[in-house]
Formats: sequence, C-alpha cells, structure tokens
Amino acid sequence: MDLTTTSDHARPAALRALAQQLRVDAVRAVAAAGSGHPTSALSAADLMAVLLANHLRYHFDRPEQPGNDHLIFSKGHASPLLYAMYRAAGAVGEEELMTYRRLGSRLEGHPTPRLPWVDVATGSLGLGLPVGVGLALAGKALETLPYRVWVLTGDSELAEGSMWEAFARAGHAGLDNLVAILDVNRLGQSGETMLGWDTATYATRLRAFGWRAIEIDGHDVEEIDAAYDAAAESDGHPVAIVARTVKGKGVAMLADRNGFHGKPVPDPRAAIKELGGRPGLLVRPTPPPPVAARPARGVSGPQEIPAWERGELVAGRRAYGEAVAALGFAESRLVAMDGEVGNSTFSHLFRDAHPERFLEMYVAEQQMVAAAIGFQARGWIPFASTFAAFWTRAYDFIRMAAISRADLRLVGSHTGVTVGEDGPSQMALEDIAMFRAVHGSTVLVASDANQTARLTRAMLDRPGVVYLRTLRMATPVVYGPDENFPIGGARVLRSSDDDDIALLAAGVTVHEALAAADDLAHTGIRARVVDLYSVKPLDTETVTAAARATGRVVVVEDHWAQGGVGGAVLETLADADIDARVRRLAVRAMPTSGQPGELLRWAGIDRGEIARSARALIDQTAAAPMRRAA
Amino acid sequence: MDLTTTSDHARPAALRALAQQLRVDAVRAVAAAGSGHPTSALSAADLMAVLLANHLRYHFDRPEQPGNDHLIFSKGHASPLLYAMYRAAGAVGEEELMTYRRLGSRLEGHPTPRLPWVDVATGSLGLGLPVGVGLALAGKALETLPYRVWVLTGDSELAEGSMWEAFARAGHAGLDNLVAILDVNRLGQSGETMLGWDTATYATRLRAFGWRAIEIDGHDVEEIDAAYDAAAESDGHPVAIVARTVKGKGVAMLADRNGFHGKPVPDPRAAIKELGGRPGLLVRPTPPPPVAARPARGVSGPQEIPAWERGELVAGRRAYGEAVAALGFAESRLVAMDGEVGNSTFSHLFRDAHPERFLEMYVAEQQMVAAAIGFQARGWIPFASTFAAFWTRAYDFIRMAAISRADLRLVGSHTGVTVGEDGPSQMALEDIAMFRAVHGSTVLVASDANQTARLTRAMLDRPGVVYLRTLRMATPVVYGPDENFPIGGARVLRSSDDDDIALLAAGVTVHEALAAADDLAHTGIRARVVDLYSVKPLDTETVTAAARATGRVVVVEDHWAQGGVGGAVLETLADADIDARVRRLAVRAMPTSGQPGELLRWAGIDRGEIARSARALIDQTAAAPMRRAA
Repeated sequence: MDLTTTSDHARPAALRALAQQLRVDAVRAVAAAGSGHPTSALSAADLMAVLLANHLRYHFDRPEQPGNDHLIFSKGHASPLLYAMYRAAGAVGEEELMTYRRLGSRLEGHPTPRLPWVDVATGSLGLGLPVGVGLALAGKALETLPYRVWVLTGDSELAEGSMWEAFARAGHAGLDNLVAILDVNRLGQSGETMLGWDTATYATRLRAFGWRAIEIDGHDVEEIDAAYDAAAESDGHPVAIVARTVKGKGVAMLADRNGFHGKPVPDPRAAIKELGGRPGLLVRPTPPPPVAARPARGVSGPQEIPAWERGELVAGRRAYGEAVAALGFAESRLVAMDGEVGNSTFSHLFRDAHPERFLEMYVAEQQMVAAAIGFQARGWIPFASTFAAFWTRAYDFIRMAAISRADLRLVGSHTGVTVGEDGPSQMALEDIAMFRAVHGSTVLVASDANQTARLTRAMLDRPGVVYLRTLRMATPVVYGPDENFPIGGARVLRSSDDDDIALLAAGVTVHEALAAADDLAHTGIRARVVDLYSVKPLDTETVTAAARATGRVVVVEDHWAQGGVGGAVLETLADADIDARVRRLAVRAMPTSGQPGELLRWAGIDRGEIARSARALIDQTAAAPMRRAA
Repeated sequence: MDLTTTSDHARPAALRALAQQLRVDAVRAVAAAGSGHPTSALSAADLMAVLLANHLRYHFDRPEQPGNDHLIFSKGHASPLLYAMYRAAGAVGEEELMTYRRLGSRLEGHPTPRLPWVDVATGSLGLGLPVGVGLALAGKALETLPYRVWVLTGDSELAEGSMWEAFARAGHAGLDNLVAILDVNRLGQSGETMLGWDTATYATRLRAFGWRAIEIDGHDVEEIDAAYDAAAESDGHPVAIVARTVKGKGVAMLADRNGFHGKPVPDPRAAIKELGGRPGLLVRPTPPPPVAARPARGVSGPQEIPAWERGELVAGRRAYGEAVAALGFAESRLVAMDGEVGNSTFSHLFRDAHPERFLEMYVAEQQMVAAAIGFQARGWIPFASTFAAFWTRAYDFIRMAAISRADLRLVGSHTGVTVGEDGPSQMALEDIAMFRAVHGSTVLVASDANQTARLTRAMLDRPGVVYLRTLRMATPVVYGPDENFPIGGARVLRSSDDDDIALLAAGVTVHEALAAADDLAHTGIRARVVDLYSVKPLDTETVTAAARATGRVVVVEDHWAQGGVGGAVLETLADADIDARVRRLAVRAMPTSGQPGELLRWAGIDRGEIARSARALIDQTAAAPMRRAA
C-alpha cells in the first residue's frame, strides 16, 4: 500500500495506522534485541508517521541525491523508531529489522552513517540538532538548495548547552529550512525533566531565540500534519514543533510511567496486540525536486600556497591563514569557520578572500564542530579554527565525529607554554593526547611557516578527524619553500653517520632542539635532530632508525607529559621492539603567565635543558653502554 | 579615603571617581605588562566600582570567611579591572599591580585561585557563570547562608552553550542569591556579537529562563546602584543586570571601535590623562554578617563501606553507588551529583539515602562539573557521576578545574566495548587518555566490586581532579572485602618466582587476563597477572618489577591504543630505563553494537587473544632471549 497515491496527504486514519505500525516494529525490534529504548520510540511515533507519509521529501533508493531532505534523530536512542520508518519505506526488510543491536548489523543501538540514510551518528544527547543547523546553514549559505532539515529531539537533551548554541545560531541565521520537532514526553532517563510538560515555556524560550514555535498535541495526527504544513511556509525563521507527548504511548502499562527508560517491553506480544498487530503498510515518501549536482572539486587548478624565505620570523598561525586563504582559490568546496578569534588564528585572511565561504561561528565551539560535520556530510571541506585549548570544549563532538566517519579539519593555535602572558587557561597542553585518542585521527604539529602551509594543503585530502597544531609565537623559517611534508613522515634536520643521541621534537621545540644540537656540537656531541611534524601517524621508520642508530633519545614537547609526542614515540618504539634509553622533556607543573622564552626555560623544554638532558643521558649510558639493536 | 564611611551608599560623584581610578589602574597594569585586554576592562569599570563600593559584602583580610560574597569574573580577560578593584580595596599594592602578567606574579593574565579572593580560574569563556551557579546552589541547597554570588559576564560568551545550562539551572532552582552582570559591550574579539546591543533580546531570553532581568545603562552609576539594590530583593529568581556598555569606554580613541581587543592602549599616558589621572581612592567593602563556621568533617566516625563475597557477580557501578551512599553517612560534607543517569550510575542509591545532599544536574555535564567546582570552593566534597563517555562533554571545564586547583571526584560508568548493544556513542574509549592529560589528576580503573568500593573511599581524601572508571557489566568479585587498594598501588594477582611473562590489565581486562593466565598455565607458561587499578599515579615498583622479572609484558585495556593504560606503562618503563618487550592489546577499530563478550573478542582484548599474544611474544623472544636488566 502506497500511502501517498490517493492524494497529496495521506488521510488521518492511514496516518494513525502507520504510527501504530511504527510502534509495533519498534517494540518487535527491541524485543528481538533484548535491549533498547522502546518507550522513547513510542512517544514520537505519530510525529514520525506523519512526517514520513506526508512531508519528508526523500528518495530512499538514492540517498546521495543533493535535493533530499535530511532527517536526524537527535534523540538517537529512539533508533528502533527510525528503523521502523526505514522498514515502512521499504529500505530495510523484516529480516534486517530483526538484527537490531546484533554484532554485524547496520542497525546499531544508536544510528550511525553505516546506514546510507543517516548523516550523523547520534547517541550523545545535544548533538543532532547542532549538526542539523550545519546542514541547514549549508542549504542557505553555501548551496541555496531547497532541501529541508528535520530534527527529532528529546526534551531531556534540551538541558544540554549545545542545544542552545544551535537554537541561537539557527535563529540568528534565519534558517527557515530547519524544523526541530521537540518530543516533549516529560520523562528523562531517571525522572522528570526540568520543565516536564511545560511546553509553553519551551515555546517562549524558542521564540526569544528567534524561532517560530508551534505547540501541538504530539499524538494528534491532524494537528501534526497542520503544523508541518505551517512549518513549510518559509518566513525567515527556523521552526520548532513543540509536541506534548506521552512516553510509552500506546502501551498502557508503560505510558507516562517512570522506570521504563531503556528497557524492553515486559510483554511484547501483549503490547503488539494492544497496538493493533502488524498492518504491513508501505510508504513511498515524495521524492525531492531535481536539483543540480554539487559543485565539482577544484575549479582553478594548482593548489598554490604561500612560501617564506629561510630565516624569516613568522608565526605558524599566520602561515595557516595565508595557506587556507590561498587554497580557497583552488578548491571551491573549501569552507572556513572560526570561533570568533579569526584575527588570532588568522582565518580572517580566508574570510577576506572568500567571504561567501567563511562562517563566523561565534564563541560556540560545539556548534562549530557540529556545523563542520554537517558541511562535510553535504560534500564541503570545512576547516575550523580556534585557540587549541578550546577544542577541549568540543571533545565529545569530535569523538562523535569519528563515529560519524566525518572528515573534519580542525586547527588549533595558541599551543603550549609559549602562549606566554595570557596564562594557562589559554595554553593547550592536552590537545595532542586528546586528538590522538580519537579513532582514525591524524595529528599534525607544525614548527615553521612553510611546513604549516604544506601541512594545511595536505589536510585537504586527508579523511577522518585531522588536527593541526599551530604556533602563536613567531619562529624562524627553517624549511625551504619547496620541501615536502607528507602525512606520516618526519624530517631529519641534523644527522651524521655516527650520531651520539637523537633529539625528537615537534612544533616550537624543534627550534630548541636545533639550538641544543648546536650547543652539544661545541662539546663534540653529535645529535640527530628529528622534527616529528606528523605525530599520528608517526614515521615509524625514521623514529626507529634514530633510536637504533644512537640508542639514546630525548623527546621534547610543549605539552603535558602524558599521552603526547613522548607517548607516541614510546608506543612506536615498543611496537617495533626497539630498546633505547628515552628521556621525555615535557611540561610537568602548572604554568603561569610569563614570557614565552621564560616559560620554555621554566618548564625545562628549552635548548639548555635539552642539552643538559642529552649530556646526562650520554654520561649515564657511557657507563653502561646501550646494546644497539640494529 | 573610605568611600563607605559617610553613608550606606557612596555618592555618585565618588562612584564615578572610583570607576575612573579602576580604569586608570587597568590601563597602567596593561601598559606595564605590555599585553592584556584594557578595552574589556574599561567597559565594566562603572559596574564594578558601584559593586565594590556599595554592594559587595566582603572581608578582604579574611577571604576564608564563610559569609563573604563571591565575585567571579566570567570574562576573565578583564583581569586588570579585577586587580584594580583589589588595589582599591587595599588588598593588592601598587608594586604588585605593576607585576601584572610577569613570571612569578599572582596577577596572571586571567585570574586564578593563586589569589585568595578568587574562587575559580577563568579565561575559558562560559565557565564563570556556571561555577557561580554552583556557589549559589551551595548557598541555597546545602548551607542556607546569606552570601550572594556576583558574576561579571561578557556578551561574546553568551554564545557558549554552557551559559545557557547555567541560566536554565539557576532559573529552575530559583537562585535569588545569584546576580549575573552582563557587560554588553557589543564587540567580541573579532567583530560584533550575534546580538550586538540588543539588550532587550537578552532580557527576553533570560526572563524565559526564569530570571529577573533589569536593563540598564552600564555607565550610569545611579542606574547601576538602583539595579543592584533591586537585585538584593530576593523574590525566588536569579537576577540579571543587562548593562549596555561601550567597549573601551573612557578613552575616546578606543571607545566602541573594533580591532583593539586584547591590545595595550597605544598611548597610555594620554589615556590616563583623559581618564582624570590617579585619584588614589581606597574602598573598604561592607563586611559580611557573621555566620556559623562550615560543618566540620566526619560526623559519624568510621567510614564503613559495603563488601561482597568472592565469586559474586556485581557491576562496578552498583558498588560505586552503594559505597558513596555509605560514605555519605560518615562524611557530612559529601555531596553527590548526577547527569540524569543516576539509575545507571547507581548514584540514585546516594539520593535515596541522603536526598538533601544529592543534586540532580540533568543532562548538562558542563554545569555539573562547574557546580562541583563551586561546591568544593565552599568546602564540600562533591562526587559527580555520569556515563564515562559523556565526561568528554566537559573536558574544558575539567582542564580548567586543574588550573583552579579544584578537588573534584568524577565517576564514569559504561566504559569500553563492554557497554555492548548500545554501541560506540555510549562507550568511553578515550577517558583514560583524557583524564591522564589533566594536570595533577588521579586516574583509577576498578575491576571488581570490593575494589570499586575501596577506591571510592580513597577518593575522599585525594586532592586534585580524581577520576574513577567503573564497569557497566557485572564481573566476578576477585578481591576479599578487607583488601586494601591505596592510590598509586597495583595488585599482583598471580605470580611465581620464575614467571615467563607479565599480563598487565585494568578494569574488565583483569578478568580476561586471569583467564588467559589459566589457559597459559595449562601449557606450562607462568604468567604474572597485575591489576593496574591506579593508572595515574602508576605503581612504578610493581610494574618495573614485573618487566624486570619476565622481560615480556602484555598490556591489555578496554580503551583506544593511544595514551591509555599501555601508554602509562610505557612511560613508566622508559622513565625507569627498563628494557622489556611490550605488546599492547587495545581497541583499534570502531566498535559496533554487540554483546560485551563478543565485542571483547572482536576487539582482541579477551582471554584468547591475551593468551595468543603471550605465546607469540614468548616464542619470538625465545629465539632472541631478552636481556634481563635486573
């Protein structure tokens, strides 16, 4: 049965039947799995039935079509409802539905883009709506395509600040292609939400944030249908359907009762009977209007990037800004974003060159990452920048981006103690550890301007979460403009056939290590200096060769001593079964304000301490020489 | 001159003079430092002058007095204004003021609790108000003391979602002891904010969040004075003073001009002259009313905790809940909080036992950490719990807590792939790396119920950020109820005089390692099994002894392969110059839904893979035997 054949809109009786079918399938899937969140699915079934039958414009056979609407379950735990919709649309069959939550199934406990109809992995509350804002921003600011973005949210997640970053941004940007459907079922996981069924207050808040809010009974299919019709009237405001619903609706023993969150229905057979059995309806949503394909990649040929002469003093952050602005000419899909510090990260150079592809994200790092997830889901290549320390604000979203298989390019300036006078709140000292512990991530640490520019270019093609750490302070250019820095490589800056020790550094400490090597050379010590600009993946060959050749390694980093560059080196040496004496110089006390040079000394990661540590290690191992594994 | 001697309220002329002095001192401090944010200080000078002279109840000589008001600069970059206030109050002298931002000075670029009048380090926008909510919650829900909490916020930071978590919580809790002073100076760091000078919209939003909002001209001292008077009338609502101000106010060349954020005044002499020179006013704020001292520690003697019999199957999260509830009887300052998942973390057991000291924080992890920072600043001992993965949502606040020298106890359940069917969004796989990279942190990973309970008790006295990782799934009790687990220790569960290999594990993998040791024993391989329940600090002696004795180590963890338990072991072995062959078993692909046991196998961190790796390592090193360093 095709619910849309007889008229534009399926009739109420059919909608109600479809909603009951979605409920039945949700209950069945959870029963088969033995776990899940049926009550959270039951509350939103009517809302989703009407959407699927009468309003969603989607071609399930062609999820890549650019004109398709987007549907996001921000309340990802209602996944059995989403999968029941897929089944009703013929996209998922009965057999697959029964694999819910099993190893190997695409139908996971929370939706992920392993399913072609899912744009973003949800399950961490407060994430789906911000990503929806990103998708809607793309449709307004970048593509001017007529697709709409529908986001189903819970009410518990309205306590997450990230939701209000999204509400604020959407209202400010006038995203009338975005519809948030608030499933206000009153009950969270462990009790009543702050506002319970006070839908009027939700509506008041949303209106204050620039939204058009429509309060409805979320179980009245005619009210729902009318609300979606009203939402389609674009008037410059995003629309919130504030739906009062009952958690567990349709199954009397569960309805509006606390204590059943995340638990299978106790008696699924009785519940299915109560819900009316299995009608077997099939829905074919209206397909989207035909639209032009997305812009092709690379409109102007070579990716030219700026270059600097050796010896110039340049801040890495400036090199990033110049490089990303230059790449914007070669790559028409490149979009830059910033957390309202573009004049410090130098992303404002991109804004000046490509204002139509720069998005000011204000001081809202979670929304910035979420928008980037949305943009890349639409085929754009987002570069987002802020002070590196403030990426910690968005760590959950970055973690979830990896589950979304998203390609993100995140750039952090103001790294380590060389931030200086602004003090520790502005100093990223955990960013390398944090980004290394993201699945499939790439972690790049740049030491000079030419390297920064080349790494920026290398990020363009790199899949997954890619992080570039730039420097606030100016450092001398040590690399020529034509040198290459492939991801996964390292650069040996000093070496001889008979090195006594290896100094491994990254970022600002490369310059300190070079200076220490000079100091050591004066006393006849030959130090190999290696620039580990690619911390993940690390250049195993170069690192192990340095360790084998010398048996003695000093790793020095402007980062806490846990999980950073030193950790990466040790993991690599251990995996390769290399024995070497390793000394790790890192920041080990809480920094204060001070001048960058003072703080490098204070932290013991400057040329003097590197040379001292090298000498001490050589003295120690001279007494008990290292066995060379080579 | 004591501005408060002649009447209750200093007169407008004196307030204006004080405001100009604050401006002059802010400009001077920044000029001496050569860096800082003078324009952000100038906009709020009138607001702070009136507060200091007429409304703040504070004894600067006795910052520990429990009746003192609290003053937080959520816009921490306005620190020169705060320090100018301290100078006007006689707490900081001229000489110290001129040390601003220098190495060794307490007057850092952003305020930290190195100053006795500062409760919380700020500088990451959007943090100060949420901590103020915590301080105000303490005053209402825990202490019923009459102090007030004043928070100066910027307008840029109103884009941070964390601010709206705070506004929502404060409104919900009716915190009429909290006053937020919004310094709406229109300009952020790199341009105009989303709302500019639209103070009416800010007021509308705040009212929708349950606040009383008072719009004023932030440079009219009489309006400011009246607004603070009005704010003092407690009516069950937090109060927001929405002040329209001019960035750079008082210095014509800076006033309301973009491009001067975070830059010293170009001509400080001229600016000081324009501001009226240096009047040298001294202000003695009204002291707080005398109040009783805070509750003493430990009202009911012994800290009894629950115990389980060996072999029982118990989920670690349940053991945490029972333990923290039991400790609540012995320690009257213990407060528990949860992110609306108390029925999963089992903090609801504390809620049931001590409802007056349990705070439901809803799904707002940043506000939860901020409230904990506030509580501990008032002398309480907060334990906060949620799913471990969701601590990533609050990583910036946790990072900042370390700069605040705050004592936090954070507990994360639902860790690793053994979360199972719910899928990767719910699986903490980066928490150990993340918490290890927090300065001064402690990271505990519990494997059975008795250990979990003991570690919970050990957290009570531990300073700094302390993290406990608990298990969702039930595991057998392997430790007796009287065993001790000191922080910094490890437990050797199997050993002999001639072990062939060491298996190092933590949490769920302890059980897999024990099983693997059994399997290996059947083929004549003696495996030492070590439970690394204290990952930071790690037990150097036990770990190095195991590595020395066997020369072969398998580390197995339910966590990503970067920066976790394996990383901690490698760092410890390297620092101690121990050579050993180390194999690291960890999660290396993106998990999916599945059963916990299936996923342990899929990830290669189960008993079978541990035994296989151990055998392979022994075979490999038998061919080329290890040199024993011992």
